[in-house]
Amino acid sequence: MKKTRKIAALAVLFGLTLSIPFQTNSTESLMLAKANAETKVAKSKNVILMIGDGMGPTQVTAARLYANKFYKQEKLELDNYLVGAATTFADPGVADGVFQSGIVTDSASAGTAFATGNKTYNAAISVSNADVSRPFASFIEAAHDQGLATGLVTTARITHATPAVFASHVRQRDNETAIASQYLTSGVDVLMGGGKSFFVTKEEKGKRTDKNIIEDFTAAGYKYVEDKKGLNAIKPTDGKVLGLFANSHVDYVIDRKESTPSLADMTKKSLEILSQNKKGFAIMVEGGRIDHAGHANDIHSNVEETLDFDAAVKVAMDFAKKDGNTTVIISADHETGGLSLSRDNIYEVNLEDFKMLNSSSEVIGAELNKETVKTKEDVKKILSAYTTFSFTDEELQQILDGDGSSYKREGALNAVVAKHAIIGWTGHGHSGVDVGIWAFGPAKESLRGLHDNTELATVAAQTIGVDLQKATKKLQDKYLYPVFKIDREGKVLFPAAEMYAAFGLKQNGDVFEKPSLSITVPKTGNTITVNGKPLQLSAPIDVDNNSVYLPLEAFEQAIGKKLSWDSLSERIVME
Amino acid sequence: MKKTRKIAALAVLFGLTLSIPFQTNSTESLMLAKANAETKVAKSKNVILMIGDGMGPTQVTAARLYANKFYKQEKLELDNYLVGAATTFADPGVADGVFQSGIVTDSASAGTAFATGNKTYNAAISVSNADVSRPFASFIEAAHDQGLATGLVTTARITHATPAVFASHVRQRDNETAIASQYLTSGVDVLMGGGKSFFVTKEEKGKRTDKNIIEDFTAAGYKYVEDKKGLNAIKPTDGKVLGLFANSHVDYVIDRKESTPSLADMTKKSLEILSQNKKGFAIMVEGGRIDHAGHANDIHSNVEETLDFDAAVKVAMDFAKKDGNTTVIISADHETGGLSLSRDNIYEVNLEDFKMLNSSSEVIGAELNKETVKTKEDVKKILSAYTTFSFTDEELQQILDGDGSSYKREGALNAVVAKHAIIGWTGHGHSGVDVGIWAFGPAKESLRGLHDNTELATVAAQTIGVDLQKATKKLQDKYLYPVFKIDREGKVLFPAAEMYAAFGLKQNGDVFEKPSLSITVPKTGNTITVNGKPLQLSAPIDVDNNSVYLPLEAFEQAIGKKLSWDSLSERIVME
Repeated sequence: MKKTRKIAALAVLFGLTLSIPFQTNSTESLMLAKANAETKVAKSKNVILMIGDGMGPTQVTAARLYANKFYKQEKLELDNYLVGAATTFADPGVADGVFQSGIVTDSASAGTAFATGNKTYNAAISVSNADVSRPFASFIEAAHDQGLATGLVTTARITHATPAVFASHVRQRDNETAIASQYLTSGVDVLMGGGKSFFVTKEEKGKRTDKNIIEDFTAAGYKYVEDKKGLNAIKPTDGKVLGLFANSHVDYVIDRKESTPSLADMTKKSLEILSQNKKGFAIMVEGGRIDHAGHANDIHSNVEETLDFDAAVKVAMDFAKKDGNTTVIISADHETGGLSLSRDNIYEVNLEDFKMLNSSSEVIGAELNKETVKTKEDVKKILSAYTTFSFTDEELQQILDGDGSSYKREGALNAVVAKHAIIGWTGHGHSGVDVGIWAFGPAKESLRGLHDNTELATVAAQTIGVDLQKATKKLQDKYLYPVFKIDREGKVLFPAAEMYAAFGLKQNGDVFEKPSLSITVPKTGNTITVNGKPLQLSAPIDVDNNSVYLPLEAFEQAIGKKLSWDSLSERIVME
Repeated sequence: MKKTRKIAALAVLFGLTLSIPFQTNSTESLMLAKANAETKVAKSKNVILMIGDGMGPTQVTAARLYANKFYKQEKLELDNYLVGAATTFADPGVADGVFQSGIVTDSASAGTAFATGNKTYNAAISVSNADVSRPFASFIEAAHDQGLATGLVTTARITHATPAVFASHVRQRDNETAIASQYLTSGVDVLMGGGKSFFVTKEEKGKRTDKNIIEDFTAAGYKYVEDKKGLNAIKPTDGKVLGLFANSHVDYVIDRKESTPSLADMTKKSLEILSQNKKGFAIMVEGGRIDHAGHANDIHSNVEETLDFDAAVKVAMDFAKKDGNTTVIISADHETGGLSLSRDNIYEVNLEDFKMLNSSSEVIGAELNKETVKTKEDVKKILSAYTTFSFTDEELQQILDGDGSSYKREGALNAVVAKHAIIGWTGHGHSGVDVGIWAFGPAKESLRGLHDNTELATVAAQTIGVDLQKATKKLQDKYLYPVFKIDREGKVLFPAAEMYAAFGLKQNGDVFEKPSLSITVPKTGNTITVNGKPLQLSAPIDVDNNSVYLPLEAFEQAIGKKLSWDSLSERIVME
């Protein structure tokens, strides 16, 4: 089954251990009172949502201590705007009996929450947690529908989960090719980040098998840039911009070339462009690589990426203060790495050793993890280019052995650094702690205290007066995201019971019914019966693990619409 | 040198590794802008400060998820009052060149900050970070000076660091005998918690070598109680109460006998008593054992102690809402254990296994760590009384081997539980993450956003209109807390250079001078020269590691006061 395959792939990607017997937590009862459903949110013309991906409470404290020591910053820009905290839990997803996620969220689930106001399963890009998922509109999409300018800016791939949830809809976050294509029709005015590979073909060192879609963007009026010089040349009145500053993620701060813009650079230019719109704008700005450094347990990059994000916060705040009619909302999607300041009972943090390595562990790890590295001497030689620190024999052996995770020697190197820096990490994944909320501008009062992360979306939408429900209805009238399988002939098939149920038909044995419609589905052959008349199908009826699967045309009369399959986005288009 | 010995003892207590070369962080530059020095704090008649010891951000999230699952609580009581966060860093103390503490605080240093508004070194109980320390008054002491009723309530020993900083002053937190004695003269009306052992003699299973001081409390008008029945019998008009509900800390919630009051019980009774005072009251209520469970990495007790604290929060809030003139401030001193929700890349938390053990690991560990336990079978037999869980052979071996820390098999048991619960701990000590601030009542607005923990004291003092400076001056006019040594004859000696410098004398070789005073101190003999006249000392001049030490009378003319040595509290009394 295609979906199962995808989930398995995702599990590998995240290093999820699916064999553990998980309980399923009911999140419905966890939902915090939705204060904002009752409270009136103060209006502002513009809204800027900023997300520090993986920026948990400890990441913020760590960056402050580091900035204080090395940059003589008394505190972070962020620190001026703390108003509360957000719960982050995912909707534990067990679709088709396949474990999808627990209570600890990934960026897709958390992103769907603060983009659209809805909980979903991990890996979902703004679709519901169901066998037949439906899309949820983000406040960015709702803003676009109502004529506001919109933008997405990140240091991760622009097709990565956090930006993706704001202007695309897929069942699985790894379908980044579809996400890139959906951006073209999303109408988002400014798209900046990494991820060029999902816009160009394999022949161009990209991932696409269909075509180069950058050309489609330029044909649609987007200026295309891929370095700081190009970015600087953009005029505020240029309207639409696609900026792809790396093939994958934008380089970490400490590895960054002079020609690569910072998050602050991208944010500044985006605000200049979007603020031309008289109706206002909505933008999401993500510090996307705090999370990556957290996954790798790379403390130097972790704090530097947090400061890169904090510099973008300064840009946003300067704009908002000058403008006087802009709400800025800042939060995180989750914590990454289980970072703690101190370890082994030592009441100290060695900030000097945060800088032990002068490049990201991603760069150093790429060398260390080569098969040609066989001895401690090989390890020592590689490290000598990145640090003046003298590792012990035992440490070199530890690095050579790797840490047993997919990070291998990179992980082990970071474990050695952590020991010296007197910090702890509890893994390479996310953790469930509440994250901070910081805010400025008219909607700030609505965000004081503890909120569920879904409330960030509703406050963002309400402050600029856009209608999430209306935008969602428009999407749900057009798209459906069911689980599916592909048979041996390459035909896409859908689960009959789940699909008919989604269209309001009740099952009674082989018969699916609603007023004035009765569909009988046998377990073999290639014909179903609709209101007594046979309907010949384009593929044989398929029974898989006791579930009956049918091709798309079997459902057209149930919904009363012509259905087509969008194989790129893996969705049904209803017309 | 006595002080060095004490520090070494403390290091063992905390498991500090003193051999690591520590940098010293300048905390002065870290101090956040003191908004409250400029902002007017709204007045209230009463103030309740509540401290969850070791209740970091993750402890709060963990308790909420657990309460939601097992007690059908949508959220914590706390969650209704979140207003901001507090920085917690200690003043890195290097007194006499001996490492005392780093940037990660202990409860004494954090407590001194939120009790008195001053940063100090770890282990200091409301005295300054200097070779000749001076006492700082707490807002509880200032309230008492101005005629308000005062109280200290905790589930830890009442002589433990967090309550101690509010009504006693010693250089080293482990001097709990002195802390108990100082409470008698502090005038605090209500004292409730554990710690009876520091009030009674060794013959009575206590720690004191002098005498039973409970009798002194009853002679001074305190009602003495030691169980729930006794507590219930206290009348609101009884005025002064000493409640000692355990020899050491009050039992953990999950081990607690029916006869032992909860923190909520103690809080309720205390508020009934203190609210009789027409001028108002100031009280500190501590959930003291969240921290202990954090140190042990005992997740079941960690969440249950947090909920015990949260129930006391409810009592305080109910009082404040009814009263209408009470400010409630809630925070934590630091995080303990480096807890994270999830580990090993698994996006789930197994809340069921938080309850794997039906007693605290303290109780189980006491059995496991016995020398008679030799085999995996011994371990298995002990555990079978506390859990229905079947441990693997490997896990039993892991427990038998211990975790290499002072927690030994208790630590290893909790490591096994953590693996199943899918949570992580990074050690048995504290960590440096910012902690939450929750507030209700008139002073609430002053606590929004990020604050340094010292601001909790200044806001508490200002809301009830008491004068911290005045109360501090009163203490500083009377007491001094210098480092000291004891010579072979048992005579207490003080460092000449540091003492004379503290009294404003300038050193010029062997001569210490200020206008109209010149003191010459040779390196041998037993005579110094004061304004040309010899002064015979009661002990020979002592040179230790190039520092000159003198007995107390050598300093009387320098300060112009009669000095006496309080050997119990290890302080100089000036008259």
